[in-house]
Amino acid sequence: MVVGVIGLGLIGGSMAIDLKRRGFADRVLGVEADTVNAAAAEKIGLVDAVVPFDNLVEESDIVIIAVPVGTAVKMLPEILDKFQQIEGGEKKIVIDTCSTKGQIVRCVHYHPMRKCYVATHPMAGTEYSGPWAAMPNLYDGRACIFANTEESDPKAVHIVEKLYDALNMRPIYMNADNHDVHTAYVSHISHVTSFALALTVLDKEKDEKHIFDLASGGFSSTVRLAKSNADMWVPILSQNRDNVLQVIDTYIDKMKQFRDAIDEFDEDKIRDLISEANRIKKIIR
Amino acid sequence: MVVGVIGLGLIGGSMAIDLKRRGFADRVLGVEADTVNAAAAEKIGLVDAVVPFDNLVEESDIVIIAVPVGTAVKMLPEILDKFQQIEGGEKKIVIDTCSTKGQIVRCVHYHPMRKCYVATHPMAGTEYSGPWAAMPNLYDGRACIFANTEESDPKAVHIVEKLYDALNMRPIYMNADNHDVHTAYVSHISHVTSFALALTVLDKEKDEKHIFDLASGGFSSTVRLAKSNADMWVPILSQNRDNVLQVIDTYIDKMKQFRDAIDEFDEDKIRDLISEANRIKKIIR
Repeated sequence: MVVGVIGLGLIGGSMAIDLKRRGFADRVLGVEADTVNAAAAEKIGLVDAVVPFDNLVEESDIVIIAVPVGTAVKMLPEILDKFQQIEGGEKKIVIDTCSTKGQIVRCVHYHPMRKCYVATHPMAGTEYSGPWAAMPNLYDGRACIFANTEESDPKAVHIVEKLYDALNMRPIYMNADNHDVHTAYVSHISHVTSFALALTVLDKEKDEKHIFDLASGGFSSTVRLAKSNADMWVPILSQNRDNVLQVIDTYIDKMKQFRDAIDEFDEDKIRDLISEANRIKKIIR
Repeated sequence: MVVGVIGLGLIGGSMAIDLKRRGFADRVLGVEADTVNAAAAEKIGLVDAVVPFDNLVEESDIVIIAVPVGTAVKMLPEILDKFQQIEGGEKKIVIDTCSTKGQIVRCVHYHPMRKCYVATHPMAGTEYSGPWAAMPNLYDGRACIFANTEESDPKAVHIVEKLYDALNMRPIYMNADNHDVHTAYVSHISHVTSFALALTVLDKEKDEKHIFDLASGGFSSTVRLAKSNADMWVPILSQNRDNVLQVIDTYIDKMKQFRDAIDEFDEDKIRDLISEANRIKKIIR
């Protein structure tokens, strides 16, 4: 099996590493638009060869789109177009790894080669990016969402299930729009709250030495996601606008409840809010 | 040296473990108001003996107050009162470990035994609490703030510096009110943002299985502090009210900037906000 990975950053690079060394792929090809990253990916040895886009699409049995979702929604129809032109193209598969699914699924809904596409979201990552952030075992034990599989060829879905099985991921099947609602709550909002926390602290603490000296493990953990890459997160927040706005509004409302309780020295109310929040202990270990 | 630890939870228990095994204390006594926790602390062996409050104060060379700050502000003057009544009491030392320093320092400012008290804040912890959360090496490499040392006996300060040196902590000297401003930014706000995040997600995701299935490493990290104990955090937020309110207001303002940028599909503005937040990378590794 030849696997082609478009975008050799944290997500694509980590998939390339494990698909090759675990024997799912006999050969891994890569495409990387950034020339520095492309050279680094070759040097690190993430893929067997970095090749031009057209060659990758022609030579790969499975194409993995691992680029920011803004680019992915333009790239996916182009790849399906190429499948249509290639002899035996209907046997090829293309998947994406994007964190929002509604728009990308809609953009190829009427494409004649739609069945070759399987929409997935492997829910793993770190706050780092680029080929140097790629690592083995990134996906082990995490969930991978398959969206709208009824629109894909069942054989293609089956092969993609095997691909994620090689990455040790748990499959979860979901409608693309439900996916976007849930990820707004358990992923996208966390990034916004971290960005806002970093901005708040940077705004106040002009003397960065104080932040460094005083940052506890708790602060570091809470602000960790604020290191995340703008290229990835701008299109996610933009494409998942409606859901994210709804979560932000709920979140601001919760912050205001804390604000008012603290303002009024209402210790019973603060205690109620914290005790209620503590319920997360039972869910997240 | 006999060290007495009042409050055998995460903070006090972890100090007890390392002060004993690293040879700073020959004997460690403990006081614990909660009977279950007291029995557990003895069984785990956090201290050499759990004793009544008065015995601990009489027998210890250094008393460590490791209870929530609301209790600590009442306990500290009582301990200094007892020092006054005990022969040789002026040679004893009492320290606290609380996360807010303004009020506790003010509450004994005019106490005749004030010089026996050294105000400290060892900045370490986890989201867990109780004697079973205590662990060795908790404090290694972290910062310990000494507040208003000019009000303490220099000899007492010197001994307390040795105590924290045994815990491998870096001392930082600071005015109590400055401490409270800085910790509002680098510690207290992180807890409020995590509590609010947990409340938001719990509110929306009535089906807890979804949270469990979909929670990425990023969400877990950001929401980790929401597991923190109400007994500890209610008095901190209450005592540091003015600073915390100021930070929350700045924070809500930043969240609204994100909200408006997303609402208006203003990708340039979202990018600017994220890029600015990314500056935290240079400070927190």
